[in-house]
Amino acid sequence: MKQVQEGNIICAPATSGGGALAIIRVSGRGSVETLAEVFQPADKQIDINKAKGYSLIYGTISSQGEFIDEVLLSLFRSPQSFTGEDMVEISCHASPFIQRRILEILIEKGVRAAGPGEFTMRAFMNGKMDLLQAEAVADLIAADSGAAHRLAATQLRGGLSEGIEKLRQELVSFTSLIELELDFSEEDVQFADRFAMTETVIKIKAMVDRLASSFRLGNAVRKGIPVVIAGRPNVGKSSLLNVLLEEERAIVSEIPGTTRDTIEEVLHVGGLLFRFIDTAGLREPGDEIEELGMERTRKKLMAADIVLAVAEAADTAEEITAMAAGIVKITGDSGARVILVINKSDLITGKRSAELKKELESICSCPALFVSARQSEGIDLIRNHLIASVETERLDNPQYIVTNARHYEALKNVSDSLQRVLDGFRDGIPTVLIATDVRQAIYWLGQITGRITPEDILGEIFSRFCIGK
Amino acid sequence: MKQVQEGNIICAPATSGGGALAIIRVSGRGSVETLAEVFQPADKQIDINKAKGYSLIYGTISSQGEFIDEVLLSLFRSPQSFTGEDMVEISCHASPFIQRRILEILIEKGVRAAGPGEFTMRAFMNGKMDLLQAEAVADLIAADSGAAHRLAATQLRGGLSEGIEKLRQELVSFTSLIELELDFSEEDVQFADRFAMTETVIKIKAMVDRLASSFRLGNAVRKGIPVVIAGRPNVGKSSLLNVLLEEERAIVSEIPGTTRDTIEEVLHVGGLLFRFIDTAGLREPGDEIEELGMERTRKKLMAADIVLAVAEAADTAEEITAMAAGIVKITGDSGARVILVINKSDLITGKRSAELKKELESICSCPALFVSARQSEGIDLIRNHLIASVETERLDNPQYIVTNARHYEALKNVSDSLQRVLDGFRDGIPTVLIATDVRQAIYWLGQITGRITPEDILGEIFSRFCIGK
Repeated sequence: MKQVQEGNIICAPATSGGGALAIIRVSGRGSVETLAEVFQPADKQIDINKAKGYSLIYGTISSQGEFIDEVLLSLFRSPQSFTGEDMVEISCHASPFIQRRILEILIEKGVRAAGPGEFTMRAFMNGKMDLLQAEAVADLIAADSGAAHRLAATQLRGGLSEGIEKLRQELVSFTSLIELELDFSEEDVQFADRFAMTETVIKIKAMVDRLASSFRLGNAVRKGIPVVIAGRPNVGKSSLLNVLLEEERAIVSEIPGTTRDTIEEVLHVGGLLFRFIDTAGLREPGDEIEELGMERTRKKLMAADIVLAVAEAADTAEEITAMAAGIVKITGDSGARVILVINKSDLITGKRSAELKKELESICSCPALFVSARQSEGIDLIRNHLIASVETERLDNPQYIVTNARHYEALKNVSDSLQRVLDGFRDGIPTVLIATDVRQAIYWLGQITGRITPEDILGEIFSRFCIGK
Repeated sequence: MKQVQEGNIICAPATSGGGALAIIRVSGRGSVETLAEVFQPADKQIDINKAKGYSLIYGTISSQGEFIDEVLLSLFRSPQSFTGEDMVEISCHASPFIQRRILEILIEKGVRAAGPGEFTMRAFMNGKMDLLQAEAVADLIAADSGAAHRLAATQLRGGLSEGIEKLRQELVSFTSLIELELDFSEEDVQFADRFAMTETVIKIKAMVDRLASSFRLGNAVRKGIPVVIAGRPNVGKSSLLNVLLEEERAIVSEIPGTTRDTIEEVLHVGGLLFRFIDTAGLREPGDEIEELGMERTRKKLMAADIVLAVAEAADTAEEITAMAAGIVKITGDSGARVILVINKSDLITGKRSAELKKELESICSCPALFVSARQSEGIDLIRNHLIASVETERLDNPQYIVTNARHYEALKNVSDSLQRVLDGFRDGIPTVLIATDVRQAIYWLGQITGRITPEDILGEIFSRFCIGK
């Protein structure tokens, strides 16, 4: 990764695509002076070199007599800017030609084209935000549902950072006790009460584990909660999906799946993004091709958060419960919630469906919803149960939800280190060895917010950003 | 078209696509006050209702406790803004969710989603620019070559408007003479010298015609100068095109043609955009399908500005001149410039090619270039001749170049009206009838800049804009 150098001015377009306007960002010491060489304010009284931060100046950009565009400059002075450096944002017309020429002119003046995420990296380097917040910037831009947005926004505003920092402080003050003991280790004094220390570590580890366990939800909210639709062929799985999608057509899009034959459909319900995965019908394995299809279905079921197990009203209770049992056998301990959906409810009487519902729910211990995809009946029921299947109450405290795989890995490492501390206490291991594990735990927590950050991790994080951020 | 109402606040995204940042524009009396309801400045001392024009304010947008985003507001006060009204530009993160929510919140507050071009229409309505300049905004955004950009920029800055206005002034002062005569018509006095008046009209009409004739060039520069590649099959037309394109790969794109079998290739050469149109080989018409192919080739040749007539070095001078004559017969009076390109020059000696060149150029009265597509030789020659074929000296005075079909039509009408005036003078038509034609000419000139603008024409012009402009 390239080191950020002082006086190293970078530029990049911060918008992309069409539209009427575009923004080009410039950051680094000397940004304003460089702009002054190519920008002529409409008001000749203005000297942009003397302009204060938070100035908005109208004028033209031209180079050697070549008029490029009429632009608006937003001028920021260090440290009151996104990156913490002197910055200029050029708002120009969105013509590809104009943007290209402005960037070319800046580069001629010695400005360098920014790499992906380099602006945010500078913000981090200059202490404008911690690593968690920097990563939240990318999440915020990508957020396409209310819940994902709320998680990213909380993180951007330092919510999760506070939680992590609190944990870290507890561990640091805990360490100071241990270190004290080490200083006097030759005298073989145990200052701290080992029992109380164990209690503290258990408490901290529980908090760490709770945070780590939030990753499944956080990740699902960010990428879409995976809902697998399973059931025998021809019970109406696809028409059910179509009805669900059709009623929300305005906000539906297609995500091509990992394999050619899988098209995943996404759907916003109640501010949450659900990712629907249709499966090949579940049936007794026959020839080899079906064997393969079953294997795929099995894999999808294991990755599901929610399974819509679809049967039809003409089926017997035995057939349905057998199907549900088959699914539960596959999902096993994955924690997926199963919802029985009995389609074609218009083909049986209300009395029959009430009886069947009671029977199924008592045997399968999961909700049984009677719907008619053909008549668009009961679709609201499915929608409500989808939302209810997500731990929405947990989403009310977004500061305690981890959405990032890197943070999850770090938390797992913290938990492992703390487990070794607990084992050490139990087995009477010398304090000096226990201290190593505690330091490890602090190290991993610090990696999340960036208090301890090897350069290579930084490069990896910021290279995933878009250019201009 | 909807009438612009005072106090009618509009909003629209001014950027589109991805990137890091997005701009949402708000315009109309009360824009600032509306923003004040949903925007909280980071600096609590700031009251945006009291902020002056050209203020840049950082803070958050939220609605009923729901945090939406950290944004930068650019605040403008009437009349110092693009539209001439109070305006706010919201620079937010480019998440689709955030942009949607901000627009929703504004609309909840009574702001209306802007139609295409409505911001620029307001700028026109409020006298911030004339119609020519307003139309240039759209051209400027679409410009993708240096020449097209220069034309649009000149127009935006009022270059063409000045030229048109000068013509209009001449006509208006001319009318005053005629009108004076009309006032005294009963006395049968001819104040003005009819000979001098004829001279004046001839002079103005010549200027109008020159402007109108610039449309072919202006339009070509804007949309790409059409270059048709013609010649017998297998002389290397396609490989020639490929070599031309390959060397400029970075800035090449494909424009799907009007018919499925035509792919047009565009290429920037020396700041000009050329549009290459390959043709079916020219040969003696055979069966019906070839007949159709020939008919298409014929049409393309008639629309060409430049024809690259391709032959191969092994051909005899007679064969090549016959081919060139065939092309000239089709292009006829269209004014297309023909350039002979003799491919496979590596197959003959330098002496032979020098002789052939001399012979061809004297017979065909057009340049004959010897190239080898296979060895990429002589391609620069073609490039230089392409640029030389465009009236680049005319492009040096972009204020006298018409790029817009609407302006061209209006100028043709002006010219027709002036011709009727001249006919009237010649035939001794009564002044009262001549005055009508002069007024017609003034009317059509005024339509270009918008001095006389029926509402329906306005609606048509601005509806072609993108939203947010």
